[in-house]
Amino acid sequence: MSDNRAIGVFDSGLGGLTVVRELFNTVPNEDIIYFGDTGRVPYGTRSVETIKKYASQDERFLLNQNVKLIIAACGTVSSVAADTAYELPVPFFEVVSHAAKAAVKATKNGKIAVIGTNATVKSRQHEKVILSLMPDAKVFNQSCTLFVPLVEEGWYSADDIVVLETVSRYLKPVFEFGADTLILGCTHYPILSEAIEKVLGDSVTLINAGVATAEAVKQYLNEQGMENIRNKESEHSFYVSDKPDSFVKQASILLGREVDGNKVQKVDINNL
Amino acid sequence: MSDNRAIGVFDSGLGGLTVVRELFNTVPNEDIIYFGDTGRVPYGTRSVETIKKYASQDERFLLNQNVKLIIAACGTVSSVAADTAYELPVPFFEVVSHAAKAAVKATKNGKIAVIGTNATVKSRQHEKVILSLMPDAKVFNQSCTLFVPLVEEGWYSADDIVVLETVSRYLKPVFEFGADTLILGCTHYPILSEAIEKVLGDSVTLINAGVATAEAVKQYLNEQGMENIRNKESEHSFYVSDKPDSFVKQASILLGREVDGNKVQKVDINNL
Repeated sequence: MSDNRAIGVFDSGLGGLTVVRELFNTVPNEDIIYFGDTGRVPYGTRSVETIKKYASQDERFLLNQNVKLIIAACGTVSSVAADTAYELPVPFFEVVSHAAKAAVKATKNGKIAVIGTNATVKSRQHEKVILSLMPDAKVFNQSCTLFVPLVEEGWYSADDIVVLETVSRYLKPVFEFGADTLILGCTHYPILSEAIEKVLGDSVTLINAGVATAEAVKQYLNEQGMENIRNKESEHSFYVSDKPDSFVKQASILLGREVDGNKVQKVDINNL
Repeated sequence: MSDNRAIGVFDSGLGGLTVVRELFNTVPNEDIIYFGDTGRVPYGTRSVETIKKYASQDERFLLNQNVKLIIAACGTVSSVAADTAYELPVPFFEVVSHAAKAAVKATKNGKIAVIGTNATVKSRQHEKVILSLMPDAKVFNQSCTLFVPLVEEGWYSADDIVVLETVSRYLKPVFEFGADTLILGCTHYPILSEAIEKVLGDSVTLINAGVATAEAVKQYLNEQGMENIRNKESEHSFYVSDKPDSFVKQASILLGREVDGNKVQKVDINNL
């Protein structure tokens, strides 16, 4: 059995490309259709009601592309709007539960910290999953509002004083809490891994939701006989709701490889 | 003659409240209706096409409130979407031309710097107005993408190392250029005035577009006999497109006074 349709991936902006990067590594045969809502980014500071509305439109766009599976490659959507996906006619993956499971597996002292956007942290969704698996775990939540703008400005070097000072300020309470495991609860955050490791030291394990989610998708496709088994190079299509011209520069940072700018198409997402 | 209708003011978010603050000082008798597009903020990193569409919807909302005059209290809209206002049935004020005029008046060495969002800087709209008034002026443009997220996070103190280092990095080329006058080309930026002054020293005059625009509005209302002459306390109404609950905290920073949170109403701007 096989299913040669593409996997659909969406995010509030381009952070979800860190998840696509892991899909490239983990399920290299799969076609990918990515939608980044660059016309309405960021989601993480908006209300739950607005985030749900935006997520539904994003999912509708991907369904219209005839995808076989949808991944919300966005910590915010995964935290507060996963229920918009209950009625989707295709399997739905989000990044929170897989990150939470990986954190439970990794922790030795049972102290897990979660960093994310305002909306993600307020939802406590990671904490709910962690406690369902490890009831005596201690979970600390911290929002890091400036991380997304910093990454989007290209300020993420572990030698940059603004980056290090910002990371230190947000993560000071994480350090004081004594977590041995830190969930990067926003798909932009893996880009700051090096700076975060420099601040926290190597006694803290960082959990990249993209790695955990890509593994889960691989296993699911295999179990369900839904793998793409065509004997050709996989295809990757990228759609955004604004500024297709800016995609290439950002994508090279987040995706870790060059993208053909001519292949990036603009979508009018408000009218879906 | 008089006109007791309100003045309509809009911005991509809440930065425009720094202009409202100046209206309170300059035309205290006027009623104000403010709309902040917090559901789609920021505008400054989006495409011109998207910014124009959003600005038209914002203007339509204010017209529906029966305002007598509209102010785009947003450097980005003023720079790239002022033409959406050409056909408005009420007078329209934007913040670019008044700031540019004030800068030309203030400069002694003819070297003027403009800081703003990506879209504002790319438009070179301040430069066009400056050169029309002072053809031998030298203008330097610098985008400061992180200033808006910093202010919105509440990080604007002139004693904050992240703030000072970020300001220094963006303004280093302004200093090297030798400007004696700096236009704060985004309505969030006056909140960073103290930090900017600390970095640049007092040899540089900062131009706050809100002050210049409020003066121009006052003069216009007087000349046209359009002042509000009712003998009662003026009324201020605030509308946002998302998160009315968060308005109060932000508004106290930007407006410099407390606002009654119960008076803040939510608008569905996408459908206008």
